[in-house]
Amino acid sequence: MDLKIEDVDDLCTGAAFLGAGGGGDPYIGGLMVKEELRAGRRIRILDPDEIDDDLLVIPTAMMGAPTVLLEKIPSGDEPLRALQAVETALGRRADATMPTEVGGINSTIPLFVGARLGLPVIDADGQGRAFPELQMETFAIEGIAGTPMGIADEKGDFATIRTEDHHRMEWIARGITIRMGGTAYFANYPMRGAEVKRASVKHTLTLARRIGAIIRTARARRIDPFEELETFLATTSYGVARRIFSGKITDLDRQTDRGFTLGQVTISPDGPGADCVIAFQNENLSAKADGALLAIVPDIITVLDSETAAPITNETLRYGQRVTVMAVGVPPIMRSERALRQFGPAAFGLADTYVPLGPF
Amino acid sequence: MDLKIEDVDDLCTGAAFLGAGGGGDPYIGGLMVKEELRAGRRIRILDPDEIDDDLLVIPTAMMGAPTVLLEKIPSGDEPLRALQAVETALGRRADATMPTEVGGINSTIPLFVGARLGLPVIDADGQGRAFPELQMETFAIEGIAGTPMGIADEKGDFATIRTEDHHRMEWIARGITIRMGGTAYFANYPMRGAEVKRASVKHTLTLARRIGAIIRTARARRIDPFEELETFLATTSYGVARRIFSGKITDLDRQTDRGFTLGQVTISPDGPGADCVIAFQNENLSAKADGALLAIVPDIITVLDSETAAPITNETLRYGQRVTVMAVGVPPIMRSERALRQFGPAAFGLADTYVPLGPF
Repeated sequence: MDLKIEDVDDLCTGAAFLGAGGGGDPYIGGLMVKEELRAGRRIRILDPDEIDDDLLVIPTAMMGAPTVLLEKIPSGDEPLRALQAVETALGRRADATMPTEVGGINSTIPLFVGARLGLPVIDADGQGRAFPELQMETFAIEGIAGTPMGIADEKGDFATIRTEDHHRMEWIARGITIRMGGTAYFANYPMRGAEVKRASVKHTLTLARRIGAIIRTARARRIDPFEELETFLATTSYGVARRIFSGKITDLDRQTDRGFTLGQVTISPDGPGADCVIAFQNENLSAKADGALLAIVPDIITVLDSETAAPITNETLRYGQRVTVMAVGVPPIMRSERALRQFGPAAFGLADTYVPLGPF
Repeated sequence: MDLKIEDVDDLCTGAAFLGAGGGGDPYIGGLMVKEELRAGRRIRILDPDEIDDDLLVIPTAMMGAPTVLLEKIPSGDEPLRALQAVETALGRRADATMPTEVGGINSTIPLFVGARLGLPVIDADGQGRAFPELQMETFAIEGIAGTPMGIADEKGDFATIRTEDHHRMEWIARGITIRMGGTAYFANYPMRGAEVKRASVKHTLTLARRIGAIIRTARARRIDPFEELETFLATTSYGVARRIFSGKITDLDRQTDRGFTLGQVTISPDGPGADCVIAFQNENLSAKADGALLAIVPDIITVLDSETAAPITNETLRYGQRVTVMAVGVPPIMRSERALRQFGPAAFGLADTYVPLGPF
């Protein structure tokens, strides 16, 4: 299946939704992808269930503080050079690329790479949403080696990292990213088709596109987008979605530290009742009201505009916005004991126990 | 010529002298080299004037805060893996290794690598002393590419860096070193024999060994080691050496910041007269008395024990020590306009102009 230019905006909206407040606004990535399609390049999307077991797949993405991205325009070659560094280290050319993360801008980077290098893009990723660190991947949980990892910047510099430890891969790559100016592009977790089938969250590019289409058409058809999203997501591997709070943003504490956007946002209900407090490290980690847990990682917590259902990323939260908070479950591969060690509450330093979002 | 075990201590003493207060105490490196020789391994030293023009030489060294080295014992494989990362990137095996820096511990790392890998070690380096940063090399001044650069730690992790800019190589490698725990081992500036002949400071391993032998034998023969050093160094490409101050350490300001040891030491004369103040960034940068310049980079400023002429590295400076400060000129390749841009006073943020240490 080829990606059509008219699908790109929907995909970006859905990616912002799955970004759980983080992941970086996919707007710039969407522009880059549309430019490639307008120039006549193709972007083929492959179903992970239909690829050869021997296919060499090298995922591509960007990392760093999303806020820096807007001031540090990519040259366009960075993710290509990152991928080629991994090819060189392996001594073999990639047959395809794929997202490491479907939430936020990283849904679009592999599409751009695919267009530029003529590589198909696998419809799957390693987070099923957005997470802030490189070891927080279903790939890692399933034992896929993270390196050789390539990392490149807009000045033409690049590096190749080798380590057996997924946390140290993150630690070293984060250090390089900071030295490269706060953002960098990378390729890691090179794997075979058989490993993609076993270790990825499948059909997430399609999922993002459908979420975007629902939000767009509900607006046009003047029907309730939130109800539509809940109905649709219940039919997917994510299983459940529901509105957990509605109100107005009345407090906002947001800092950039250690290369992340850290803080919390407070939402007050229109009527009487307790405030909702959402804590975030790039992505939203937990939502609580009066101390009671409404939702927590790895479940997806997304803040949406109450009027348009447009997803709001944490760098654009503003005092006084009227918002609706939606929580979404995650597929079984993301809820296992091993998965929770990698990106459950404790992995973010939270004391709370994971309580999966149940159906009503 | 083979390096003999009885020469190792002399070489370490001379390397500490040429370290200009920095470069890291060669003690641990010396132990590692002696252990290799005791195990029956050979270390062949090659005269740079007598090597083939096509020889592939990959220099090896360590970087980071010398103070950390004592608490973070190397596994021994780090510099080998760094060199092998460069070999992999080049697709060719090294024919020899050499020091990037003869001052301090880095005089010994290539000797260890040579013993372990059976590679000869070229009797030359790229600094003719010690400097704190990777672009401060005669190799860089003479246009040798700094990368591919390999960098490895004691946990088995390593990275390969590619950039055309010597300063960015330093910047990115320093970031990785910090993330690797404060010290790391590296290989960079891979070059051919013809480039070694053109771009290196020659015969500096021999120079270090002779300086060490002079200090040792002067003690044993109860003659003045300072006078012996001045006489000997005047006959080398360094051209001139002289005592510029003597006294007692009366003030010491030493901090670890940005991965460096920064500060200044004040020495007061025994009789009346102005104090001498030496500023350092790992290495000693300038020596002044009453505002007048006594010596400045790239000339070598070394603090020695007044009694034994043992060189004192900056991490072991102590209040109350009786010391003699010696300044040494540098070979012509290190005094050119291009050289001064790379490691003259301005490269260290000093406002002073370079005034070469003249003969009396």
